[in-house]
Amino acid sequence: MNLTLSDTEAILEEAARIAREYLAGHADRDEPVVRYLAPDALRRRFALEPPARGRPFEDLLEDVRETLRYSVRSGHPGFSNQLFGGYDVAAIVGEWMTALLNTSMYTYEVAPVFTLMELALIRHMCGFVGWSDGEGVFTPGGSIANLMALLAARNRALPHANVDGLRPDDRLALFLSDEAHYSVTRASSVAGLGTSAAHKVPVDALGRMRPDDLRARIADARSDGLRPFFLSATASTTVAGAFDPLEELAEIAAEHGMWLHVDASYGGGVLLSKEHRELMNGCDRADSITWNPHKMMGVPLACSALLIREKGRLAATNSLHADYLFHDNEAASYDMGDLTLQCGRRVDALKLWLSWQALGDEGHEERIDHLFELADTMREMVVERPAFELIRYPQACNICFRYVPPALRDAEESNDRRHRLGELTVKIRERLREEGRLLTNYAPLDGVPVFRWVASNPRVTRDDLELLLDEIERTGAEF
Amino acid sequence: MNLTLSDTEAILEEAARIAREYLAGHADRDEPVVRYLAPDALRRRFALEPPARGRPFEDLLEDVRETLRYSVRSGHPGFSNQLFGGYDVAAIVGEWMTALLNTSMYTYEVAPVFTLMELALIRHMCGFVGWSDGEGVFTPGGSIANLMALLAARNRALPHANVDGLRPDDRLALFLSDEAHYSVTRASSVAGLGTSAAHKVPVDALGRMRPDDLRARIADARSDGLRPFFLSATASTTVAGAFDPLEELAEIAAEHGMWLHVDASYGGGVLLSKEHRELMNGCDRADSITWNPHKMMGVPLACSALLIREKGRLAATNSLHADYLFHDNEAASYDMGDLTLQCGRRVDALKLWLSWQALGDEGHEERIDHLFELADTMREMVVERPAFELIRYPQACNICFRYVPPALRDAEESNDRRHRLGELTVKIRERLREEGRLLTNYAPLDGVPVFRWVASNPRVTRDDLELLLDEIERTGAEF
Repeated sequence: MNLTLSDTEAILEEAARIAREYLAGHADRDEPVVRYLAPDALRRRFALEPPARGRPFEDLLEDVRETLRYSVRSGHPGFSNQLFGGYDVAAIVGEWMTALLNTSMYTYEVAPVFTLMELALIRHMCGFVGWSDGEGVFTPGGSIANLMALLAARNRALPHANVDGLRPDDRLALFLSDEAHYSVTRASSVAGLGTSAAHKVPVDALGRMRPDDLRARIADARSDGLRPFFLSATASTTVAGAFDPLEELAEIAAEHGMWLHVDASYGGGVLLSKEHRELMNGCDRADSITWNPHKMMGVPLACSALLIREKGRLAATNSLHADYLFHDNEAASYDMGDLTLQCGRRVDALKLWLSWQALGDEGHEERIDHLFELADTMREMVVERPAFELIRYPQACNICFRYVPPALRDAEESNDRRHRLGELTVKIRERLREEGRLLTNYAPLDGVPVFRWVASNPRVTRDDLELLLDEIERTGAEF
Repeated sequence: MNLTLSDTEAILEEAARIAREYLAGHADRDEPVVRYLAPDALRRRFALEPPARGRPFEDLLEDVRETLRYSVRSGHPGFSNQLFGGYDVAAIVGEWMTALLNTSMYTYEVAPVFTLMELALIRHMCGFVGWSDGEGVFTPGGSIANLMALLAARNRALPHANVDGLRPDDRLALFLSDEAHYSVTRASSVAGLGTSAAHKVPVDALGRMRPDDLRARIADARSDGLRPFFLSATASTTVAGAFDPLEELAEIAAEHGMWLHVDASYGGGVLLSKEHRELMNGCDRADSITWNPHKMMGVPLACSALLIREKGRLAATNSLHADYLFHDNEAASYDMGDLTLQCGRRVDALKLWLSWQALGDEGHEERIDHLFELADTMREMVVERPAFELIRYPQACNICFRYVPPALRDAEESNDRRHRLGELTVKIRERLREEGRLLTNYAPLDGVPVFRWVASNPRVTRDDLELLLDEIERTGAEF
């Protein structure tokens, strides 16, 4: 299939037209978030298997339209299913150009502009953390960033680990809260320590790691002959949106010579807000920070950075000096390939760079502040409406709540009541998901499912929030 | 900065226009592959730091044009610097829509169409391997895929490793060739085994792992009390493009109960060619295969698959049953999030799906066969022209060669001569890189730099190859 240049032009023009029409649909509240089809039904809509013979482009563009039609509108105000949402035109243009320029981030020579952009972004982000120096690299997501932080800490604690591997007397222990993300525990398994080396610390009423319990766990680990080496704090937990007390944790990490990591996959964006950045107080004392601009900052997936306080640590952990790739020339010191677990690495810098140029620090600050305001509005509405119960007073942008049917509104708190409400939460949410007008999520908190709504799309209005609560209430009344 | 819908439409339209103009430039042989600027000079062209205040879109689109102007044209026929090149319009449209639809591959409910597409692609790729069953998942690149394969093998060999970590008597050994990719050795470090657990096996005159030497290394490891558990074969080595003898390696792996992995990051595409797939004979006996469609198959970075013969192995290795994310509903068995090291995962399926629909198996086969023809042409030209020496007879699409100045053409082979030619290779290539008309690469082979040209862009013509050799010869004469 040899396309002429004018075919190519026509196809790209048509793709741009499809894109414009699609984005216009996000503003249409009658457009569902998803036209849900179960796998078997969806499979009947597409000839999914690659064909023996190529198909004409007109047919493919029809498939593209069908793909848009049956995919989830994550940019729609009715989407609050994950920790991302909305859309950013500058960032979309960044992705379009990234596809066109198709290169890899390993060396300056094949990615000169993108290398300088990523370095500038890393430096700028380190500045918001409070580091005048520091280093970092973009990763395919927060889980890989957390893994890379743990590996850097392991290899600092055990300088022989890189070459010799773990030795019989290397009995390491790491600590994270009961509500931290599962990727940290998995990283412990990946690194050869096993999931059992990951010690979970209880949380307080807001979902924050309890420093006293952390001290106790560390003492227990020490008396078991283990060596505490890594403390993973969370800055905005996945479900409750809690921020661990970084100042106190930094103190404890320093006392025990532990590497302090902050998983701020969601919360990193808070650093841009003068009003809310106190939630991250103490983060400048961390050794490493995961920060995903694809969450609060609204650029498309994936855009995730691992920031490291001590310059040189990433190369010390990851470099194997591959001389087929890294050449000794004037720009070699800019090559980022030695900083990561990857070799070829997709360009994730351009979208964030363009978004940050379009909004500026001020625009991003307004965005973050506005997300907090939306969360406040949502919290107030949940508290005011008799059909709802707020679960955990929120520190930031996650609002966890339950629908309570009239019969249970005056019933005393009990395990039975909680579990009945939990089951109802799942039923309501699954019904809403299948109807597709809205898409919000549930997640377990203290072992029982709750609705979890997260502010991530600044285009959401009070009316959208009313609609979500109305729909939950309407559906709840049907069970 | 609040854009109206018509602003948004105008911006996307302009982005598409910029894209069309850019792609047209690939057909212009007078357009350089790169307008090379050293980091300091390039930095003066861009205000790289994110600004305090947002900037107008007209300015940003100007920055986009400058980004295109100073980036490397990997789609240009003069680009042969890496194992990827060229461009694929269907795949570009796929990336554009991926940016627009912005979702994550963890659950069917947020990525219904993409989940079915990825599963169909994995099944289709497993079919080309020769597996009627099997599983797989897309990864951010070959290095992470190789790491995931090694972790699956480690956890199969040591069922306690996931929870308990490595125990004092777990002394594992893995094997790979001297010319295998560095990511496998690094994976050994990541997994807690250390780089020293990765035993390198010598290669033959074509660069293939020598089975006899492998047997000897395994015997040595066993007599040192180590347990061989993982054999990483390479299907197209990074520099020489050699294919390890998979049938014989599969035999040896079976004898020793080792997991056989095939790093076919580049070579996977060969499976699509009836004429050339014999290079991969025996791959159906592997336990896992890394295959990057962003290389021979020409879709934008990153598109990389890890394929596994035994269904269930990926979940057994990676799952931590995160109940906040994975819900028990009718589509839950389609959720792919438990198969990977990632949590959020970018959609890399749509671009490959569209490309495969556009070309069909036949079109991709023609593409691969044409790349082999281009490599044959290049090899013949190198052999025929007195100024060049072919280094290693190629098995596939990597052509390694040296420029030889007249004074050394009749000189006897010696270490001194090799090193002088190696130094000259680097000088010529660095000069060409700075001039920017072309971009090809060098890499060490047997410890000495050689030119490495790889067929990856099917739009390359005989004239392009002539030009490359002419330019090398012209530049070589200047030293």
